Amino acid sequence: MQAPEIRVPAACMIVIGNEILSGRTQDKNLAWIAKQLNVLGIPLLEARVIPDDKAVIIGTVNAMRARYDYVFTSGGIGPTHDDITTECIAAAFGVKVVRNREAQAMLERHYDDKNMLNEARLKMADTPEGVTLIANPVSAAPGYKISNVYVMAGVPSIFQAMFENIKHELKGGASILSRTVTAFVTEGNLAEKLGVIAGAAPDVEIGSYPFMKEGRLGTSLVVRGTDPARLDAIYGQIKQMLLTYTSELLEEETIA
Amino acid sequence: MQAPEIRVPAACMIVIGNEILSGRTQDKNLAWIAKQLNVLGIPLLEARVIPDDKAVIIGTVNAMRARYDYVFTSGGIGPTHDDITTECIAAAFGVKVVRNREAQAMLERHYDDKNMLNEARLKMADTPEGVTLIANPVSAAPGYKISNVYVMAGVPSIFQAMFENIKHELKGGASILSRTVTAFVTEGNLAEKLGVIAGAAPDVEIGSYPFMKEGRLGTSLVVRGTDPARLDAIYGQIKQMLLTYTSELLEEETIA
Repeated sequence: MQAPEIRVPAACMIVIGNEILSGRTQDKNLAWIAKQLNVLGIPLLEARVIPDDKAVIIGTVNAMRARYDYVFTSGGIGPTHDDITTECIAAAFGVKVVRNREAQAMLERHYDDKNMLNEARLKMADTPEGVTLIANPVSAAPGYKISNVYVMAGVPSIFQAMFENIKHELKGGASILSRTVTAFVTEGNLAEKLGVIAGAAPDVEIGSYPFMKEGRLGTSLVVRGTDPARLDAIYGQIKQMLLTYTSELLEEETIA
Repeated sequence: MQAPEIRVPAACMIVIGNEILSGRTQDKNLAWIAKQLNVLGIPLLEARVIPDDKAVIIGTVNAMRARYDYVFTSGGIGPTHDDITTECIAAAFGVKVVRNREAQAMLERHYDDKNMLNEARLKMADTPEGVTLIANPVSAAPGYKISNVYVMAGVPSIFQAMFENIKHELKGGASILSRTVTAFVTEGNLAEKLGVIAGAAPDVEIGSYPFMKEGRLGTSLVVRGTDPARLDAIYGQIKQMLLTYTSELLEEETIA
């Protein structure tokens, strides 16, 4: 079943970095921002993981900013040679990269020793022209917003701190809530009955996620939507259905 | 710096599933397959995470199979109502979904008790017409290959087992190797010298990845390429450069 069509503002995440596509680094920002956006009532409808490649970054940013209300990027805004996100964002918007005085002041306040603020670090004060900065309380070098695109750092602690600084301005719908019930019942056993419940509840999203734990197969059933009373009702139906197979329903937290 | 242009076959991964975009499930297949593809010499150039939405799945599969030599998908091939990948793959290729006799035989062998093989489970024997099956040694229900698209399960243990069954047929170039050296030196300090090294070595990819560990900032420097002697040479240059800042070089394994 597909989720009911959602007319509230929707988001896309662009993960920029060869290190994710090489398998060196496990991305953690996508799952984190997804949960934040649930609370804000902004469905995350797509994520793209792309390399540090100028043409790909420009093309992806332009495609995604036309399609989604909010675009969040992670990665590529540091001081080293492989940090090319800013020049690509500028190119995507057809504006120049300029030394941002406010960003420079942030870096100057951060580095007491003026010798520390070398040319490489000053590169982190360069932004596309006309951006609004996103403060970085961890290491000073800011992210920025340009139109509907929020450009943020890849290091999770900094990405998260930057998001905390912008989330108040994001406009979504009602929070997207979920209820989960888990049991050692296989999908093949419960699929038919679950299908009946899902067929009668097109206003909520019901997901069925199999897992294996210590050699035993089980399924987590997740109900998602914005109406808590309706979620509780469908959740109750699913629990009753599972109890026809097993008396042992597990809390979500018990599943790795 | 961008990676040197690679003319060997390239791959894309499509992660299908609302559970990844909702933040409920942390994807682990992307990082895993990326490392496998490194060994096979097949660069993973893009990954997309998309919802269980028919139009989006069809559009994404058709766009990616035209652009990349190999497309790998994860998720949505189980027996429940929200498993819609197979109907979407069939639609993307303009073929029918049919009951695959070989897949049915696999399921029949797996379920000794014939009552277990209900209609829901038999749905997992339905495939687009004309596919080659990918055996599933974990839970029997197979994945399949159609043209250059490999359709596999989302559960990591099954995804991995399926990939093991197809990797012999994938044709890549020389293995993509990497050397990593890590130190508690910040990117801002080393950026200039690293840039000089990178500028003189356009034939390898040099990535700089900052991290924070127990409150200390550090950087991992990664050299990637296919020529081991060349990697060792550049790796040696980077080590020498780091030793001008610190005597303490860390092994990659010591960084979380």
